[in-house]
Amino acid sequence: MDLFPVFKELAQKTPSKILLIVLDGVGGLPLEPGGPTELEAARTPNLDRLAQESALGLLTPVYPGLAPGSGPGHLALFGYDPFRYVVGRGALSALGLGADFREGDVALRGNFATLDAEGRVLDRRAGRPSTEENRRVIAKLQEAIPRLEDVEVHFYTESEHRFLVILRGEGLADEVTDTDPQKTGLPPLRAQALDRASEKTARLVNLLSERVREALKEEPRMNGALFRGASKRPSFPRMQEVYGLTPAAIASYPMYKGLAALVGMEVLPVEGEGDALEGKLQALEANWDRYDFFYFHVKKTDAMGEDGNFPGKVEKIELFDALLPGILALRPEVLAITGDHSTPSALKAHSWHPVPLLLKAPYLRADEAKRFTEREALRGSLGHLRGVELMPLLLAHAGKLLKYGA
Amino acid sequence: MDLFPVFKELAQKTPSKILLIVLDGVGGLPLEPGGPTELEAARTPNLDRLAQESALGLLTPVYPGLAPGSGPGHLALFGYDPFRYVVGRGALSALGLGADFREGDVALRGNFATLDAEGRVLDRRAGRPSTEENRRVIAKLQEAIPRLEDVEVHFYTESEHRFLVILRGEGLADEVTDTDPQKTGLPPLRAQALDRASEKTARLVNLLSERVREALKEEPRMNGALFRGASKRPSFPRMQEVYGLTPAAIASYPMYKGLAALVGMEVLPVEGEGDALEGKLQALEANWDRYDFFYFHVKKTDAMGEDGNFPGKVEKIELFDALLPGILALRPEVLAITGDHSTPSALKAHSWHPVPLLLKAPYLRADEAKRFTEREALRGSLGHLRGVELMPLLLAHAGKLLKYGA
Repeated sequence: MDLFPVFKELAQKTPSKILLIVLDGVGGLPLEPGGPTELEAARTPNLDRLAQESALGLLTPVYPGLAPGSGPGHLALFGYDPFRYVVGRGALSALGLGADFREGDVALRGNFATLDAEGRVLDRRAGRPSTEENRRVIAKLQEAIPRLEDVEVHFYTESEHRFLVILRGEGLADEVTDTDPQKTGLPPLRAQALDRASEKTARLVNLLSERVREALKEEPRMNGALFRGASKRPSFPRMQEVYGLTPAAIASYPMYKGLAALVGMEVLPVEGEGDALEGKLQALEANWDRYDFFYFHVKKTDAMGEDGNFPGKVEKIELFDALLPGILALRPEVLAITGDHSTPSALKAHSWHPVPLLLKAPYLRADEAKRFTEREALRGSLGHLRGVELMPLLLAHAGKLLKYGA
Repeated sequence: MDLFPVFKELAQKTPSKILLIVLDGVGGLPLEPGGPTELEAARTPNLDRLAQESALGLLTPVYPGLAPGSGPGHLALFGYDPFRYVVGRGALSALGLGADFREGDVALRGNFATLDAEGRVLDRRAGRPSTEENRRVIAKLQEAIPRLEDVEVHFYTESEHRFLVILRGEGLADEVTDTDPQKTGLPPLRAQALDRASEKTARLVNLLSERVREALKEEPRMNGALFRGASKRPSFPRMQEVYGLTPAAIASYPMYKGLAALVGMEVLPVEGEGDALEGKLQALEANWDRYDFFYFHVKKTDAMGEDGNFPGKVEKIELFDALLPGILALRPEVLAITGDHSTPSALKAHSWHPVPLLLKAPYLRADEAKRFTEREALRGSLGHLRGVELMPLLLAHAGKLLKYGA
């Protein structure tokens, strides 16, 4: 059920400010039964104090049992039904790389592969080349294949065997099947158009496959490529229209800046390397008066979880805790802190476990939750929510949603 | 929203095993305010120990306020949206009776009725005959009406005034209206086809009504019949396709075997009479290596609740508790224990109350729930779930679901 028409009708502009802080992958697990999660192990005096004057709850980002990628996890937090607003694999790669990816372009995920003399796939990942190798071969491809017919071709290294191709020109569409046969011993599939509008694109993808083989025929391993996930830049309704907000994003990594831009946020410049927490706080302070919604992203909690680095994740949580007083000094009317999914160090991967949600706002009911942890959040007055349900709650607490029905 | 395409894409085969134990109608109510529920009254040392190392939650089988029948209650637990995957009344009777009910057949629920000389309904239940009487009259009908035109007719006693008819032949379909006028003083309605494909079936149902009256004209009370719920055997996607599982069912009663078969489970033979708990455990042990998903059904908890037999239901819970160590010895990677609905002895009927859910699996978060009871389940870390949300959670804990979106 699409509730955007409802929110559109009820949204009203007010001066109050909403700050949504996403600690990427912050939800965790104990390393052994009975042990603490990363949030429980962290010393977080500022978060603790805040939790005691906030309402807590648990958020299932997308659906019970589904471990979301960054795309669906974030879109849900922005209030976009992640089963309705789907970002294709090619588009997600383009966002993740911060590639120049425009309206009308088609992005494809490429894998370098090893083909035998008959053109059959020997290795779908070309022996997992180094990212350095990938860069060398991508440069060669870019030089050999700057265009196909009247269409520009742009190659980007992703990592190891993975790369991105962006096609730019007239008459492109993305209903095109993958060329990856998904197993070895078979030749790459021919891309097929699933509608008439995509016929040109399918033809170009097949031409691209041939031209890549030709250009790489001297390469011992990376002598072919498989393509999948053809996708245009999605055209989603903007938060301005849906919620009547003037939204801004504070993030350092291309994927999150890209996702924020997709829903209409202005992506603010951030000074500094890596997660650049201080730079993010400065960006928040410098732009505080100009927007009424801020998405503030912290990446390293997820990165440490992915690495299986429990103490590292604890440390990143504590670093955020140290930043918190500066954030609170801005006195947002509505502040939410949560994650886009869990990334337990114990799993070294995104997981399906719910994430704690903290909400500081006027008009809260008291609860017994004393810390921003998974276990305490269970006792919170917000109960269990889905990711997609968060935005209307934030809008309501900010006084930005009128009564529904007379 | 149908999520089956999503699960299909994300499901992956692994050696881990999922065991879903359904204690039919296990949820209960206190007999008086402040008293224990059946689960609270039962002495369940094994379940208690298990609960302490498990995560608990509360499951609303179908929808708040809806007391589900066995069909929707179970389909939801198998992950099939019970509003989308509907089993018609005739088909459900056929499954419940374990009738020979094949692809292409049409099943109808029949009620014996008393008609007056003008053919108007005097009693829609023919004075509630005994099941014995029903059997006698069904035998008479089967002899009198073995076929209608080129179609075989099979009659089955259900109980009291209720029976089942299965039509078997070419060109049958189930878009046929009921003949039960739902009140007395009116003649039975003529069955009407709602689409062209169902015209033959409608004609045969009307012919059947006439032939039944003719065959039973000497019967004082059971001299007519009303038909409803014409339905073909549903054709649902199989769990193999949707989840990539190799599923098996361990159940004694036809209804549950039939529902399991509908979603593609292999129904394993069980030795013993009635609930045959020991036979079920043996079936589980004997087939443990051959499947990766087991549905294990315990019926008597529901039967006692339906009888309003509180101590009887307590005893059946304790019998299951005694069986539990044998089940745990198989060391399933993921074990869930729950119900398909509540059947409080106090109500002598299925009810809409949520049922406790116990999940034993790797990667659980700790919770404070100490027993498998309605009240303790409230404190569980799984929170409140819908029945249909259980399967993805089980798949995720078993490592059988890939990440959703990149």
